Amino acid sequence: MSTVAEKAREAREASRKLAALDGSTRRASLTAVADALTREADRIDAANAGDCSLAEREGLASPLQKRLRFDRRKQDQAVEGVLSVARLDDLVGRVVDRRELDSGLILERRTTPIGVIAMIFESRPDALVQIAALALKSGNAVVLKGGSEAKESNRVLAEIIHDAAAGAGAPPGWLQLIETREAVGELLDLDRYIDLVIPRGSNDFVRYIMDNTRIPVMGHADGICHLFLDRGADRDMAVSLAVDSKTQYVAVCNAVETLLVHAEVAADIIPAMTEALRGHGVELRGCSRTRQIVPDMTPATEEDWGTEYLDLVLAVRVVDSLAEAIEHINTWGSGHTDAIVTSDREAAERFLREVDSASVMWNASTRFADGYRYGLGAEVGISTARIHARGPVGVEGLLSYKWIVTGSGHVVEDYASGRRSFTHRTIPPQEEG
Amino acid sequence: MSTVAEKAREAREASRKLAALDGSTRRASLTAVADALTREADRIDAANAGDCSLAEREGLASPLQKRLRFDRRKQDQAVEGVLSVARLDDLVGRVVDRRELDSGLILERRTTPIGVIAMIFESRPDALVQIAALALKSGNAVVLKGGSEAKESNRVLAEIIHDAAAGAGAPPGWLQLIETREAVGELLDLDRYIDLVIPRGSNDFVRYIMDNTRIPVMGHADGICHLFLDRGADRDMAVSLAVDSKTQYVAVCNAVETLLVHAEVAADIIPAMTEALRGHGVELRGCSRTRQIVPDMTPATEEDWGTEYLDLVLAVRVVDSLAEAIEHINTWGSGHTDAIVTSDREAAERFLREVDSASVMWNASTRFADGYRYGLGAEVGISTARIHARGPVGVEGLLSYKWIVTGSGHVVEDYASGRRSFTHRTIPPQEEG
Repeated sequence: MSTVAEKAREAREASRKLAALDGSTRRASLTAVADALTREADRIDAANAGDCSLAEREGLASPLQKRLRFDRRKQDQAVEGVLSVARLDDLVGRVVDRRELDSGLILERRTTPIGVIAMIFESRPDALVQIAALALKSGNAVVLKGGSEAKESNRVLAEIIHDAAAGAGAPPGWLQLIETREAVGELLDLDRYIDLVIPRGSNDFVRYIMDNTRIPVMGHADGICHLFLDRGADRDMAVSLAVDSKTQYVAVCNAVETLLVHAEVAADIIPAMTEALRGHGVELRGCSRTRQIVPDMTPATEEDWGTEYLDLVLAVRVVDSLAEAIEHINTWGSGHTDAIVTSDREAAERFLREVDSASVMWNASTRFADGYRYGLGAEVGISTARIHARGPVGVEGLLSYKWIVTGSGHVVEDYASGRRSFTHRTIPPQEEG
Repeated sequence: MSTVAEKAREAREASRKLAALDGSTRRASLTAVADALTREADRIDAANAGDCSLAEREGLASPLQKRLRFDRRKQDQAVEGVLSVARLDDLVGRVVDRRELDSGLILERRTTPIGVIAMIFESRPDALVQIAALALKSGNAVVLKGGSEAKESNRVLAEIIHDAAAGAGAPPGWLQLIETREAVGELLDLDRYIDLVIPRGSNDFVRYIMDNTRIPVMGHADGICHLFLDRGADRDMAVSLAVDSKTQYVAVCNAVETLLVHAEVAADIIPAMTEALRGHGVELRGCSRTRQIVPDMTPATEEDWGTEYLDLVLAVRVVDSLAEAIEHINTWGSGHTDAIVTSDREAAERFLREVDSASVMWNASTRFADGYRYGLGAEVGISTARIHARGPVGVEGLLSYKWIVTGSGHVVEDYASGRRSFTHRTIPPQEEG
């Protein structure tokens, strides 16, 4: 058995013990992790310094170098993140449904961890900490693969986190680290041990994962988000939301890539919006009607509608109606996050209903689409699938459930023959069955 | 564009309209479907008679011929099924979560249909009716592929159901039928149109689907279910549950395939159980310890622990402890349905907690694991995955959700800069935000 398969099997075995832990032990494990990360800050510094200087020598692109750096401020944030996950309500083992099937025959649906989750992410050591904390809180074992640039940092963090949690009651082996690209290939074949893969990274990377495994994958490849300025849009609000949605943090999936503007307000809004966005260094690419209003804009082609720039570039298109905006978004978007700016409630409600995306917004910045901002505590990622969890995924998205039937010798033949019949009566979860 | 891709695209387009329908229109469509099925009974009879006589001429195995027959009694049951699905509570568009992120910034999570579901099933015309009804109730468009033996029946049923629903407000194209094996191959590539595949059929068939598509698959290949007779088991109850779990309907996934017996009660229970099961025509295959008690039993090999007989065959194994039973089930089972018979509450609770299956039962027949019996109205199938829906899947398992944010110009920069902070206050779904 390969090392990767052994690690995955160990995670599977640990997952069964982890699933049987009570919430207070899982919480104590998280607190122990936070304490250990604080106590071992020097060791983390040293490992991270090693990664950073190697990255510098190898000439890694500067945004990547920046993401790799895990300084004390980021470490403190990570520890605070672990503690805030520890403080979240315990969602594992809750009865979410209870019904009487017949006298003395009770059905319950109870939340459980999923089992073993593989997380494959690129070079941010803070991601490892957040993911490990969410896994522990939700009772899932994890197999982690971080970016090779962060190898030393990840190794030290994984060891500290694993050992601290295990010392506080988590089963040894609950967190596994794999380190090579070849190991990922092997991992993707291990559907007997791994229940879910969550990739975080570039579009190509996520698509590669999706194309190369039978294991369910949760995540998103593209984040092509839209802001639609309806004819009922307040100009100042429209400009402010465009600026925030585009520039507040440009290299992320919930930043806007295309602005749609209703023809009736285009002449009024586009000049002001162009000025504001250019003031933030944004290059605008316009459709022909946009360029009739601002002639010095680069022309947009069809390719622009399907591009996630992740950069200070924004495509602009004039549309004739709300319906056309919805159609554009459902055609070109990636089902991630799309927003409308309008004072017309009816138009907003139609947009929110008909735009087929994980998050839809009315008079708010697309940048709000995030697990922390949504109050989920933290997130393992954002899913654009319509299966299992959709949008920002926190602890709840890492849970499954099981059905529990208790009887006193009930047999199906009694119901098939008509001797007995089902009552199917809902019982509040508090009431004893 | 191939015909299959066209059909899938039409389903995708219809799905957006279907998602926007209100619950009363979906209910009216279902009632119209029930009426039309009743009205067109003669046409259904004729089509089904054609399929049945062809099957007879071609010498189709007799259980398959039996499943193919869609007589008036089965038709009435199917119509009653459609009406009972129509009567179910409407679960689409419900607000399942509402919270204030900050003053005037409200987050809601609202249930939505998944989108387009492909259902691939073998030769039962009643399955088509049930699946179409559940899809309509949950607001999903469907692409259906039934068994080729039921071609005429399926064609007529699909036309009647599609047209009746469309006449009552469902968007034309919401139900698509494909007919050939080649079409299935093409369908499995259409991840841009299809959100979920639900295969129902033999193990090999389901595994083939799982291995040949990037689209998420919901279902189960094996149903290797266990009944564990603990040392605290009442003998009569144990025998009665073994008989019901094995013989009530033998060719189904929730029938028991392996009986585990605690060593302390083996000598007492196994002879009585053997007599009762043999009385129902069951062939028993025992481990060596079982055969010390009943020597004329066929020996069981390791292969038996991993076999889904779907027939009047049952493997029997003596185990020394509850832990060994749990270990056996988690090793050899398929995570479908497993039950314990015991009067010891503590043992039962440990079994229910540690057996990692979709349904776990205490003193009840495994045959209860079924959407109708669980009170879900009906089921599209039973899932052994731990992602999305698990166990019997009814309307709720065909739903996704979207996040809806409404603000009044809120921007993320205000929170990033510390000018504002989140309140993250839960609001009951009734209260206005």
